[in-house]
Amino acid sequence: MVTKSADKPLIRALKGETVKSPPIWLMRQAGRYLPEYREVRARAGSFLDLCYNPKLATEVTLQPIRRFGFDAAILFSDILVVADALGQKVGFEEGRGPVLEALKDGKDVARLNLDGFHDRLAPVYETIGRIRQELPPETALIGFAGAPWTVASYMIEGGSSRDFATAKSWMYGRVTDFAALIALLVEATSRYLIRQVEAGAEVLQLFDSWAGALSHPDMRHFSLAPLRQIAANVHAAHPEVLVILFPRGIGAGYLDFAAEKFAQGLSLDQSVPLEWARDHLQARACLQGNLDPQLLVAGGRSMSAGVARILNRLGKGPFIFNLGHGIVPETPPEHVAELVKLVREG
Amino acid sequence: MVTKSADKPLIRALKGETVKSPPIWLMRQAGRYLPEYREVRARAGSFLDLCYNPKLATEVTLQPIRRFGFDAAILFSDILVVADALGQKVGFEEGRGPVLEALKDGKDVARLNLDGFHDRLAPVYETIGRIRQELPPETALIGFAGAPWTVASYMIEGGSSRDFATAKSWMYGRVTDFAALIALLVEATSRYLIRQVEAGAEVLQLFDSWAGALSHPDMRHFSLAPLRQIAANVHAAHPEVLVILFPRGIGAGYLDFAAEKFAQGLSLDQSVPLEWARDHLQARACLQGNLDPQLLVAGGRSMSAGVARILNRLGKGPFIFNLGHGIVPETPPEHVAELVKLVREG
Repeated sequence: MVTKSADKPLIRALKGETVKSPPIWLMRQAGRYLPEYREVRARAGSFLDLCYNPKLATEVTLQPIRRFGFDAAILFSDILVVADALGQKVGFEEGRGPVLEALKDGKDVARLNLDGFHDRLAPVYETIGRIRQELPPETALIGFAGAPWTVASYMIEGGSSRDFATAKSWMYGRVTDFAALIALLVEATSRYLIRQVEAGAEVLQLFDSWAGALSHPDMRHFSLAPLRQIAANVHAAHPEVLVILFPRGIGAGYLDFAAEKFAQGLSLDQSVPLEWARDHLQARACLQGNLDPQLLVAGGRSMSAGVARILNRLGKGPFIFNLGHGIVPETPPEHVAELVKLVREG
Repeated sequence: MVTKSADKPLIRALKGETVKSPPIWLMRQAGRYLPEYREVRARAGSFLDLCYNPKLATEVTLQPIRRFGFDAAILFSDILVVADALGQKVGFEEGRGPVLEALKDGKDVARLNLDGFHDRLAPVYETIGRIRQELPPETALIGFAGAPWTVASYMIEGGSSRDFATAKSWMYGRVTDFAALIALLVEATSRYLIRQVEAGAEVLQLFDSWAGALSHPDMRHFSLAPLRQIAANVHAAHPEVLVILFPRGIGAGYLDFAAEKFAQGLSLDQSVPLEWARDHLQARACLQGNLDPQLLVAGGRSMSAGVARILNRLGKGPFIFNLGHGIVPETPPEHVAELVKLVREG
């Protein structure tokens, strides 16, 4: 039995259909909370080695599909492979997260380049092809990338940041260097996503995890505008591809994204009020979200009440069930199974 | 010359008046970016020693008033003195922030108590009295406290947190213990603020710095509801006192606070869109905010453009100029002087 893309529940929701039992997948669904993931991770070498190993990356992408039957698989990778493929040194330290050789100035930006970009990322494209072949026919395949502001913040700060002091000192003080970096990331990310579609991705999600740290005018300049350009580039090459944006933490700024309608899906963090999202956003985009990941850790009646509330408010329009942020490693896998059951049973 | 409270620009704004040159003060305006603060801090012993030293706490509170002529002084203290006065061990480590002996369970909550609460906080009340006597007649005095959710998160986590995993495990799993802790903090915070008013505070600001980490239903239960109760308690004792709330990062959730109208001021973080705030919030409360603190570090034309934008959008209604979050230590004091000039000249 071959299912066409258009018949998959996730695709139908993103095209604006109200799917009776809403599709569900979870951000970071392939990850450390799964023992079978930890087993593969332990023999993969570094974290980046795992991202660039088509066989193992395919395996960990499929693990949560087998276990829970999610409506979508999302490519196992990391948003910082783009920085890596542009020539920046990127590593990951256990318990500390990403560590990059931070860009110091415009010269460092100028040294980054797109030569060899696709060669470095070839294993990712190969992974997508393999996943697509092995997925159940009803399961959609999501490719992804980080948004330029979020990726730039890591490239400038050299890792995670509390207040983005250095990245914002570029934004306000090294205006030309910062603009050059954002422009390069728009170009690189567009090319990367276009190749992901050609390799088999049916949906693309863009993560702007730190958009909420920006003032509203800066959010429009450095989150919304680059994402609009990337979506335009991708749609110029592949008009049919469906794009989900996750500008996390921007509050009422979600209205700006909904107004422009250049993406088919909007992923909501857990702070977004459900009634407000239904009344002001859902007519313009398929909504996705937004259970608190810590409710999935807690499980039980707190979780089922939270799930029911979300389904009641958002389930009467185009909607994809998800978390408000990624699964945390402490999540009991049984709770994930319970969650899928709750959503499927409505 | 004696100026009545009612004539001070900050008070007029909070009472709903559009003040032609909007009043300005800055969160954390007494702090490490000032050399005169660092000088006092160096000879004060621990950070808590400074908070409990009326002479030195008064001195650092007044430093930014003398230097910049802000429209309000805010008591120099810390939100965690409430935890300390309830009997929890609280310390501050250089570069790491607050470190508390974390509450482990309901028994630890039961051991906290209000006996000796005001004795421990007596130096704070004395500080307020001293500041009030020494303030210029046109300068308002703001007292403050942390909101129950934010203070509870430190008390349970034992310090700062990335995802509030333990605090939320109480919220969802130790429901009774968590409710008891919030109830105790509502009572303690109310008593603390009432005494601040009696000591001379004209305005009270409640900081819910981590409200944005909550889902919208949890925000209503654990940020909005406790703050409503505290405001009611304070207003029952002192109907004239003006209350500013800062539920940072709650996005469209600001609508809930505006709808209830139990506070006179709403402080906006930098992510809040200015036009949206003007159209949906300003008729219901005096707005305060919301320059990105990193723009104050940057200074120059980026800063002046940001200031002009805020004044143009929010200056035509009741408004207090402030940052979207506290001043950071890297801020050049000259930029603060420049900011005050820009706001005063409109």
